[in-house]
Amino acid sequence: MNFMEYRVVKDTMGEVKVPVNCYWGAQTERSRNNFKIGHEASMPKEIIHAFAYLKKAAAITNHQLAVLVEDKKELIAKVCDEIIAGKHDKEFPLVIWQTGSGTQSNMNINEVIANRAHVIQGNRLGEGKLYVHPNDDVNKSQSSNDTFPTAMHIAAYKMVVENTIPGIETLADTLFKKSQDFKGVVKIGRTHFMDATPLSLGQEFSGYSQQLTNSIKAIKNALKTVSELAMGGTAVGTGLNTPKGYDVMVAQKIAELTGLPFITAPNKFEAIAAHDGMVELSGALKRCAVSLMKIGNDIRMLSSGPRCGIGELIIPENEPGSSIMPGKVNPTQTEALTMVCAQVMGNDVAVSIGGSNGHFELNAFQPLIAANVLQSARLIGDACASFNKNCIVGILPNFPILKQYLEKSLMLVTALNTHIGYENAAIIVKKAHVENKTLREAALELNLVTNEQFDEWVKPELMCGSME
Amino acid sequence: MNFMEYRVVKDTMGEVKVPVNCYWGAQTERSRNNFKIGHEASMPKEIIHAFAYLKKAAAITNHQLAVLVEDKKELIAKVCDEIIAGKHDKEFPLVIWQTGSGTQSNMNINEVIANRAHVIQGNRLGEGKLYVHPNDDVNKSQSSNDTFPTAMHIAAYKMVVENTIPGIETLADTLFKKSQDFKGVVKIGRTHFMDATPLSLGQEFSGYSQQLTNSIKAIKNALKTVSELAMGGTAVGTGLNTPKGYDVMVAQKIAELTGLPFITAPNKFEAIAAHDGMVELSGALKRCAVSLMKIGNDIRMLSSGPRCGIGELIIPENEPGSSIMPGKVNPTQTEALTMVCAQVMGNDVAVSIGGSNGHFELNAFQPLIAANVLQSARLIGDACASFNKNCIVGILPNFPILKQYLEKSLMLVTALNTHIGYENAAIIVKKAHVENKTLREAALELNLVTNEQFDEWVKPELMCGSME
Amino acid sequence: MNFMEYRVVKDTMGEVKVPVNCYWGAQTERSRNNFKIGHEASMPKEIIHAFAYLKKAAAITNHQLAVLVEDKKELIAKVCDEIIAGKHDKEFPLVIWQTGSGTQSNMNINEVIANRAHVIQGNRLGEGKLYVHPNDDVNKSQSSNDTFPTAMHIAAYKMVVENTIPGIETLADTLFKKSQDFKGVVKIGRTHFMDATPLSLGQEFSGYSQQLTNSIKAIKNALKTVSELAMGGTAVGTGLNTPKGYDVMVAQKIAELTGLPFITAPNKFEAIAAHDGMVELSGALKRCAVSLMKIGNDIRMLSSGPRCGIGELIIPENEPGSSIMPGKVNPTQTEALTMVCAQVMGNDVAVSIGGSNGHFELNAFQPLIAANVLQSARLIGDACASFNKNCIVGILPNFPILKQYLEKSLMLVTALNTHIGYENAAIIVKKAHVENKTLREAALELNLVTNEQFDEWVKPELMCGSME
Amino acid sequence: MNFMEYRVVKDTMGEVKVPVNCYWGAQTERSRNNFKIGHEASMPKEIIHAFAYLKKAAAITNHQLAVLVEDKKELIAKVCDEIIAGKHDKEFPLVIWQTGSGTQSNMNINEVIANRAHVIQGNRLGEGKLYVHPNDDVNKSQSSNDTFPTAMHIAAYKMVVENTIPGIETLADTLFKKSQDFKGVVKIGRTHFMDATPLSLGQEFSGYSQQLTNSIKAIKNALKTVSELAMGGTAVGTGLNTPKGYDVMVAQKIAELTGLPFITAPNKFEAIAAHDGMVELSGALKRCAVSLMKIGNDIRMLSSGPRCGIGELIIPENEPGSSIMPGKVNPTQTEALTMVCAQVMGNDVAVSIGGSNGHFELNAFQPLIAANVLQSARLIGDACASFNKNCIVGILPNFPILKQYLEKSLMLVTALNTHIGYENAAIIVKKAHVENKTLREAALELNLVTNEQFDEWVKPELMCGSME
Repeated sequence: MNFMEYRVVKDTMGEVKVPVNCYWGAQTERSRNNFKIGHEASMPKEIIHAFAYLKKAAAITNHQLAVLVEDKKELIAKVCDEIIAGKHDKEFPLVIWQTGSGTQSNMNINEVIANRAHVIQGNRLGEGKLYVHPNDDVNKSQSSNDTFPTAMHIAAYKMVVENTIPGIETLADTLFKKSQDFKGVVKIGRTHFMDATPLSLGQEFSGYSQQLTNSIKAIKNALKTVSELAMGGTAVGTGLNTPKGYDVMVAQKIAELTGLPFITAPNKFEAIAAHDGMVELSGALKRCAVSLMKIGNDIRMLSSGPRCGIGELIIPENEPGSSIMPGKVNPTQTEALTMVCAQVMGNDVAVSIGGSNGHFELNAFQPLIAANVLQSARLIGDACASFNKNCIVGILPNFPILKQYLEKSLMLVTALNTHIGYENAAIIVKKAHVENKTLREAALELNLVTNEQFDEWVKPELMCGSME
Repeated sequence: MNFMEYRVVKDTMGEVKVPVNCYWGAQTERSRNNFKIGHEASMPKEIIHAFAYLKKAAAITNHQLAVLVEDKKELIAKVCDEIIAGKHDKEFPLVIWQTGSGTQSNMNINEVIANRAHVIQGNRLGEGKLYVHPNDDVNKSQSSNDTFPTAMHIAAYKMVVENTIPGIETLADTLFKKSQDFKGVVKIGRTHFMDATPLSLGQEFSGYSQQLTNSIKAIKNALKTVSELAMGGTAVGTGLNTPKGYDVMVAQKIAELTGLPFITAPNKFEAIAAHDGMVELSGALKRCAVSLMKIGNDIRMLSSGPRCGIGELIIPENEPGSSIMPGKVNPTQTEALTMVCAQVMGNDVAVSIGGSNGHFELNAFQPLIAANVLQSARLIGDACASFNKNCIVGILPNFPILKQYLEKSLMLVTALNTHIGYENAAIIVKKAHVENKTLREAALELNLVTNEQFDEWVKPELMCGSME
Repeated sequence: MNFMEYRVVKDTMGEVKVPVNCYWGAQTERSRNNFKIGHEASMPKEIIHAFAYLKKAAAITNHQLAVLVEDKKELIAKVCDEIIAGKHDKEFPLVIWQTGSGTQSNMNINEVIANRAHVIQGNRLGEGKLYVHPNDDVNKSQSSNDTFPTAMHIAAYKMVVENTIPGIETLADTLFKKSQDFKGVVKIGRTHFMDATPLSLGQEFSGYSQQLTNSIKAIKNALKTVSELAMGGTAVGTGLNTPKGYDVMVAQKIAELTGLPFITAPNKFEAIAAHDGMVELSGALKRCAVSLMKIGNDIRMLSSGPRCGIGELIIPENEPGSSIMPGKVNPTQTEALTMVCAQVMGNDVAVSIGGSNGHFELNAFQPLIAANVLQSARLIGDACASFNKNCIVGILPNFPILKQYLEKSLMLVTALNTHIGYENAAIIVKKAHVENKTLREAALELNLVTNEQFDEWVKPELMCGSME
Repeated sequence: MNFMEYRVVKDTMGEVKVPVNCYWGAQTERSRNNFKIGHEASMPKEIIHAFAYLKKAAAITNHQLAVLVEDKKELIAKVCDEIIAGKHDKEFPLVIWQTGSGTQSNMNINEVIANRAHVIQGNRLGEGKLYVHPNDDVNKSQSSNDTFPTAMHIAAYKMVVENTIPGIETLADTLFKKSQDFKGVVKIGRTHFMDATPLSLGQEFSGYSQQLTNSIKAIKNALKTVSELAMGGTAVGTGLNTPKGYDVMVAQKIAELTGLPFITAPNKFEAIAAHDGMVELSGALKRCAVSLMKIGNDIRMLSSGPRCGIGELIIPENEPGSSIMPGKVNPTQTEALTMVCAQVMGNDVAVSIGGSNGHFELNAFQPLIAANVLQSARLIGDACASFNKNCIVGILPNFPILKQYLEKSLMLVTALNTHIGYENAAIIVKKAHVENKTLREAALELNLVTNEQFDEWVKPELMCGSME
């Protein structure tokens, strides 16, 4: 940083030195200096890109409502397109841990758009007066108070439909396919982590698939509130300084630009003062994390071994095991997945605390809420995709083990009840347990059934019922 | 307990002494002795009553499907009705902190029904053989594994529709009514806890009302999964030992008996191995707690004072304040409400951890999940009703204070921009701020507006827009 | 409640009807009526008893400092002794969800003491003037603001030293004893839930024991802040209306009465406005819950089976298993324990949220904080004692299984490296894995070692190192 | 990535393409490809640098114990120094969401050291055989299972002593200094957010200072367990493949290199299977977050206004307020601080869930635990420093407001009790309240005191007691 060159910019508090080639301005720089908390540029890029969508939509709407001239609209839209294309990611150095309204990030993008427009017009950065004003033009009909919540909703909605839901769906689909493939694979069930009556491996996987189907439903339910945008409420929700009809139109424009079903929030006071929609989405992601934790743990445990665990499933070997122990395949994808679940569960608490601490007309925990929801949504989508591709797709039943457990299990005795009576069945089980024998061995030794009868009567697959 | 008399009962492990006049049996007593954790009888009564509904429904369905004789059905149904009426609440001494499947509570009710039926038949407790067998009859076509989840869903659904939602709705209605009543009450807005542009008190309250409307929507969404019942899955979800058609019929019967829209779960493996529906409901209750925490805090702060706080609202005086300070009305209802919110947020973490730790075919954190969801649902309903009745209904605007703030605030200067220009407006504000004057005083002293112009131009109510 | 008789009492707001035979007065009754939230009388009895200690200590100190006459001191002390002995538990009907300062519970005890003293003096309840005044005498030199925090600290400290730590210590001791008993029991280790190098069962248990030893240390560290009492701070921490020296003396008196090392808080403003000491204690209990969850899960998994799980441990059979499956011993104690852990982790969030939401001179989430910390402390103590007595004490190694795993495991090959070289060892492992053979079988078939050499070289116990 | 050139490396699973100029090898590359979860390179750099310390310490200790030759030790130490100096940060592309043991990051550093040593020796990357072997030399006497926990402890301890504690201490010191500066500034107290008896502003700040002093104590207590290192335990805690005395020596060496008081863990089984020390540290950081949330909220509320809030404090203006409202200073530092607090509270839940989910000999949630604890520690330190420098240092009492509240408050009447009697005092208050007058006005109008008497008797400063 020693030889960094600066240009001097001014705002109402006086002069500020800004790195010479950066598009950002005084307010961004002040924030950089005043908030040295955590890693630089931690404000999620998804928020920046969402801001670009809404700035473009605002410019177009302002122009349509005759409060912004055509060429300013064009310039703003052009820079927004560049930002959305990721061309200016380095121009957004601010952190999550700034003002709780995200005002400084709103000003960051206002400043970048204004200065970049200046350069697009053929001027040199830092020379001459800006034609597009950061506040008067880029921020027209807006306030940080309605734009940051709008950016949060856009970013979260996009992340969920582009990453989270596809990730979960892919995994749910594979689990469903496996549940079909494994329909005929009868295995011992386990309740309380103890041997229980049999079911099919397909039935077991059908439960996982159902969990994710339900999770997706919950996430989609939560998206409804997230589709409502605060824009048009400006400072406190009253819509001060917006042209008539602006709120509905700008939401429509954002919907058009993003291809997502955004609408204007029915109550702007709620949409600015509370971010319960984000809290709800976080809760739905947490609910999915709870499902995934269960699924991940089952896979981890069912594939444990190879010799001293449960070992009913064979999972793909993605990395070399220890050089001295071939066959040591660690359930690393499960581990990544379950760590993600723990993170999402923690994030939900952070989001809830942030959401509950709004005061009066503004919630001032917005960057926190945005960052945590986006991380949760991203991690769940990515982890599901990774878990699916690198683990579930290649999963195989370990048939000899599955069969061996079924045979060893004492629970199958239930099938004899109707043939030789409960009392006799109990005698068989007791003998088998004490003498560490199979049911068949005990039954034959007791002369209570013949080998053929045992084959005919003890059919675990019939104990599994049918799976619609 | 010194002179407690006992009768001796037997189970497969031997003899157990049971208090002589209690209907419960050996398994209940063993649980009492083995799980001395926390207060006795902590298992929620709602779960017990829900069990009575499902035992009755099972008996009727078993009879319809010809696996239970008429008089046994009648006896079971009769005892269930007594339990639902609260006549046997003392017969359920078990704690939450027992086996994670709730098996012991399932056996508790099985034993109570069987023994009570014995007495109804004219026998003396502890004498003679039971005609209605706890396992073979009362528990027929059932397993703890599908009944406890069913009882959880029944109890939670009932609590939510009978207590939680009515409580929230009552509060939401009052808040909505207040938002109408306070439509014309213009006040200063606050963002970042700092003075901002004005809005009406009605608009502020409309935000609260909207928060609760959205919360109710979220809770109702979550109820959909809760309406799905595990019964018919028995031990591991396969439905072993149930007659054909039983699952659909028993759910219909439960729906009929409770008057609530229960259906059989589409996938019993999921319904037994996971309790994501309860996790989802807990998350929706938590989302509501987040909303209520915000509302409660606003009310607390807006009514602070009487002399040294914000003081815009007058809340009812429900208890004598300090004997030396008349007028010290503490926001005690808000305090109860916000403590409830904190509890619900904590409970949600407990429920999520419990939900995520299921293994294979059974989740063994069920009593924990049930107890926390029921507490959250109960507390939210009760606290909303109490907060509504004892605080919100009687809330009044403190007109002099509201007016005084509006007049003192510097933010109204915005209204002058279009008449005397931004520069002159800024000069007025600056003078007012530095010299601690009102805008009007500063404006008049600067001869930039007349008193009449000020009256005409600075109309906060026009800055509030309109509230649909 | 139909035939309930009432007496009429008065306070500054007018008349109130109180159940005729109850010692409580107007303010208690108002709270009962205004806070119908959750179950009646949910305010923990430990808080009530702690209040009795502090009221007695205050009376004695006030007398010593000459602001309370002897016979009033005697009367107050006498009633306090009765309350501590549990004779008046029914006189405390208030709920947790009242005013956040716990003022109403403070008044409840003030009223009960005053009225009970009246009766002890030979008067009839409700007749004549009270000699001992609830506010002027019982509450002398006190405020709810310094007494409730003091009661919280007394109750929590007592619960932790009388219940929590003894429970954990008993369990830690048994685990340590088991670690000694199982020193020579070599077993396969598991990392990533997969087979790894061996260790002794004693070493495994020594880890559990160490976890609990560390947990106790953390809890004791947290007790230091809890030993600091707010009393003497009165309303806002300034000690208004207390005689000189009162704070130090009253804390000494409480220490004397309880036999616990209480001292006056060094800063009363902190002690009233924040309850970080309780938050810290909750965090220490949560840390212990995290340890116990790990231990509980290990025991659950190591004892899984009997035929189709890991099955290395045999846990006591405390309840009859299923009537059709002898040998189905469910790890019910583990389930109770791990549910408790989940609850404690959730409670910690509730406590933290409550602790973080104090405002200015008072934290108004005190009953919430108290109730959750007390529940966590009680549950951990009880659950450890139950888990210890009903599970760990009777735990036994399943020697045949342990031996079988050791023999089957491929990891022991490491011991051959130094004799036949890594390359040859790897060949043996590969063959064993692919052909599903033991190491010994593969080694012998490959003629790389003799049976005697295998016996001599492959000694798992030597791979375990030594355990100090 | 289109023109990325690759070199081909091999491991036991076959060939892998690695970017041509990177020092990392096959296992790192496999992890990159298999774990595309979240942003690249999310594994905290502090963990990488901590690994460099321990690899250097291991090399030196191995050399001292004669299992590693001198020049290999030298090469390893040299590369470690480069890594610690931050010269190879780009060589660590792995994510948090990998295997839960952090094995892949351990291999990442092993590979980078081996390849970088190769180049230091004068060879070209990718050509010839490596003299320093990643596993046999760099990883000698180690396992991922004992190195990752060791790296976590080193990184967390360093962060806490270098960043967290200094940050909190700086803030605590300033708050203490302010408490001294503001000793004589008498102000109205507030309980339940309502007017209460007076205290000094210095007393109020002394509470904040005490909260942080206690927080630091709690964090230091937690550091004790964190100072214990798992190294020497290798795979499962038995120390397999380590030379005698290695564990103690390597911990001493790490202590020497870092200047921090690390020691070998007394029980390696605990140190690998559980990370309760990290959970405990997280809990202590959370406790501090709870304190900071309270302090931040108080500052936010006390500085609210400027005209329509509480306004007792003047906080520094760090950024331009709205262009139309001079004097709108938002409490942005408080907002950043309280968002950090919410994050730390959420992170603690994630850490606790991770900590509770270890199985048998290994906890497989380590990268999650490490990342969250490091983030919490970093954020608290940074946020305290920022809050201190940009807010607390420059904070000033707003004397006119403070005085005005004192005069308006009705609570001061308490001081008259001893002069004119409680009854008369109450009459004054009642009149003042109803007629909206000051106490003085009401008292004079009632002729109960003279102006001079009021001056003499009503001295709020005497109601504040003394502050030691």
